[in-house]
Formats: sequence, structure tokens, C-alpha cells
Amino acid sequence: MQRYFSNQLDDNKLILGDDDWYHIKTVMRMNNNDKIEVVYHSELYLCEINNQDIRIIKKLEKRIDINKEIVLVIPLLRENKMDLILQKATELGVNIIIPIKMERSIIQLSSDKEDKRINRWNRICKEASEQSHRMDIPQITDIKTFSDLDKMDGLKIVCSTREEEMNLKKFLTNHQNYDRIIIVVGPEGGLTIDEENYLVDIGFNPVSLGNKIMRVETVPLFLLSVWNYENME
Amino acid sequence: MQRYFSNQLDDNKLILGDDDWYHIKTVMRMNNNDKIEVVYHSELYLCEINNQDIRIIKKLEKRIDINKEIVLVIPLLRENKMDLILQKATELGVNIIIPIKMERSIIQLSSDKEDKRINRWNRICKEASEQSHRMDIPQITDIKTFSDLDKMDGLKIVCSTREEEMNLKKFLTNHQNYDRIIIVVGPEGGLTIDEENYLVDIGFNPVSLGNKIMRVETVPLFLLSVWNYENME
Repeated sequence: MQRYFSNQLDDNKLILGDDDWYHIKTVMRMNNNDKIEVVYHSELYLCEINNQDIRIIKKLEKRIDINKEIVLVIPLLRENKMDLILQKATELGVNIIIPIKMERSIIQLSSDKEDKRINRWNRICKEASEQSHRMDIPQITDIKTFSDLDKMDGLKIVCSTREEEMNLKKFLTNHQNYDRIIIVVGPEGGLTIDEENYLVDIGFNPVSLGNKIMRVETVPLFLLSVWNYENME
Repeated sequence: MQRYFSNQLDDNKLILGDDDWYHIKTVMRMNNNDKIEVVYHSELYLCEINNQDIRIIKKLEKRIDINKEIVLVIPLLRENKMDLILQKATELGVNIIIPIKMERSIIQLSSDKEDKRINRWNRICKEASEQSHRMDIPQITDIKTFSDLDKMDGLKIVCSTREEEMNLKKFLTNHQNYDRIIIVVGPEGGLTIDEENYLVDIGFNPVSLGNKIMRVETVPLFLLSVWNYENME
């Protein structure tokens, strides 16, 4: 069943945005009495389309999800790579995405373009959340710098290209108790030595992903797949 | 360093295809004395461009790879999804890809288009192999039917949408000794009950990937990521 997100409840009716109505009427060609699911304040409702309203029929039971948080720290990338990461990371359960200005990142956004870009990213994550029937939409922060990571709590990992570092499997086997995991992925040319050293200084653990040469947009999907796998019960 | 594949050795010179020469001259704008790596018969050579020749300088040591084989059985999908799977699966180390006509697959290829399509798929895998510095190119078989899987040996898995099935982590924890793993991924609408039952009859183990709702093209990447992770040493 099609799923949407709402921020507003009014007299047993959930209010949807114009984009959602466009999707319902024009893309899905739904009619009166057709059923949809709507997430409102982290609760899931079975609803019915009734003229211009979305009427709640009943509250539904939620799917149980992993009760650990995963934060991805990623470089600014070309649009098609960024879109792929955002869509797939949302499917695979990412909670927070922090885009960072990294030294070797090819993309440099002027600050007037930042807001527009972040809006676009949020839209991609919202649509992917609906499609993958999530109960929430991942949070994308403003574009930050590495020093902003200084005060974040959690199990901290930086994907290192130094092959001598402990590999991800050994690391996660030794670190199973955490509420939040924060993983930094470098840009195409890798993190600079200074960047990696700085991250280690503020508590990030350098971890190797093995000897495969992956494109940068593959790495977050690899990490999130492993994270889901490790949290299967 | 840029990597290419060759099938022919002639008097200490490795012969490359026209596509490769186009890439060397026009895309990479390389010149005489520039160095490249060439894989020939699963051996890696450092080579030098010398007019119209690729001269071997020396044999290089190989990167150690996972000594288990992974076979992905996938449905026919729309071109953009297929391309993404082929590119990423190659990066992540797939050995054999078997495209299958599945009942709920939207794409039906006429046999005169099959050859053209398989050529295209092979080209994508070759390019991805070069980019990810593989020592081999994944093999893509002809388009097959499920009954062709009957005689294949290996640890056999079918990704099931039945949530009550054993999950992948438990399954792989119980099955660590195998030379080859064969995994079937269903199309957008899932396998039919008859298809899944048939696969179980010929020895495939139904396994659940958890409660995430993934797009069909995400599933092979998820599986290959897990496979790489499980084989980290």
C-alpha cells in the first residue's frame, strides 16, 4: 500500500502536502475510498481518500526496526552519486546524514546553492522513505566541517584506505554495544592524511573495508548492508 | 594506475581491443612511455605504451582475493537497474551472473535482442572490472530458466519474502564451509509461490533478509556486501 508522511492532524483527518496530493491523484490515479498508509508523529495509520481529505480508519501496528542509530558522514559528491547514496541509504535505514566539505571533494557549493541542494536531498529521502515503508525520514544536516563532529557521541569509525588498519568485521565483533554508530566515508581521492589524523584525534577509529576497490558511492551502501546484517536477530 | 584486460600475447607485447585503445588515447590522453596495468590469463603485468604497442615491463604481484565463488541469479530488469547491478556487483566481487526469465519480471526480451543485450552487459562488467582493479571479469551466462539451476553445485539460497524464514545471518553462521554460493534474487513483484517452491525442491534454502523493504536492485548489493564482510579475515 502507498505510504505518505504527514505533519498535521485535524479532526481525524491527516493533512498532506501538495506533492503528496499530486502523487495520489496524478501519478497513482487513486480515487475516493482508496486506502493509503500515513505516518504521523511516528505512528502509522490506515487511511481512506475522501474527496479532498485523508480520513483515518485505524491505527496500525508498527514494524519493529533496529533500535540503534546509524549516522553517515559523507563528502559532497556529484549529483547522480549523491542521489544514489541518499536513496539507497534511506532504504537501508540510515538515521542521520551529515554532508561535509572535504579537502579532496570535487564539488564546492556556494552557500546560496546550499539551501536549494539540501531541499532537494530532503525530497529524495522523503520519497525513498515512502517507498521503503519507513516510519521516519532520515535527517540531513546542514553542510558541516570535520570539527563539527568533535562533540558527537557514539561508536566512531573512519573508513581508512590504509590496509594495515583493523578490518570492519574484527572491529564490529569487538564493539557490539553501542546506541549510535557514526561512520565517515571519504571522497573519490580519499581523505587527506591531515583529515584522517584529525578524526583519529577526536576519537574516530580507522577501519579497513578490505582490499576491494569500491567507488565512493558504493561504500555507504556496503556499510549500511553490513549494519543491517549485523543487527539481524 | 589504469587497468585493462588482454586475451593475446605476442612477442612480449600484450594486444588490446579497439575500445581499450580509444580509452587510452582519447579518454585518458596517454602518451608514449605512460604506464598501465594489463591482466592477461589471470596474471597482472606492468606495461608501457610504445607507439601502437603495449610492452610488458614486468609481472606484478596479485592482490589476494576471496577464494570462494559467488553466483548471482537475477531477473531481467529495466536497463538502468540492470546496469547498476552489473556495475556494483562487479565492484563487489561477483563471479558469475545468471539472468533468468522470471514470471513477474516486467521485461521480456525477444531472442534477437538477447545477444545484443548480453554484449552490452559484458561491456559494463569489463569496464567495472578495470575500474575496480579486478583480476578477472565476471561471467554473464545466456538468459536461462530456473530448471537450468537444477544441476549447479554449491550452497544455494533463495531470497524469500516470507518473514518467518531463517534470516541470512543465522543461515550463514550455520553454513561457513562452501566453495561456491548461489543466490537467487526475485523480481519487483517477488518470486511466485510456484517458483519459490520449485527452487526449494531443487535444493535452494529460503532465507529472509530482514524486515527492510529494499528495491530489487539494492538486494544484490546488499548480498555482496555481506559476503565481502563475512569473508574479511
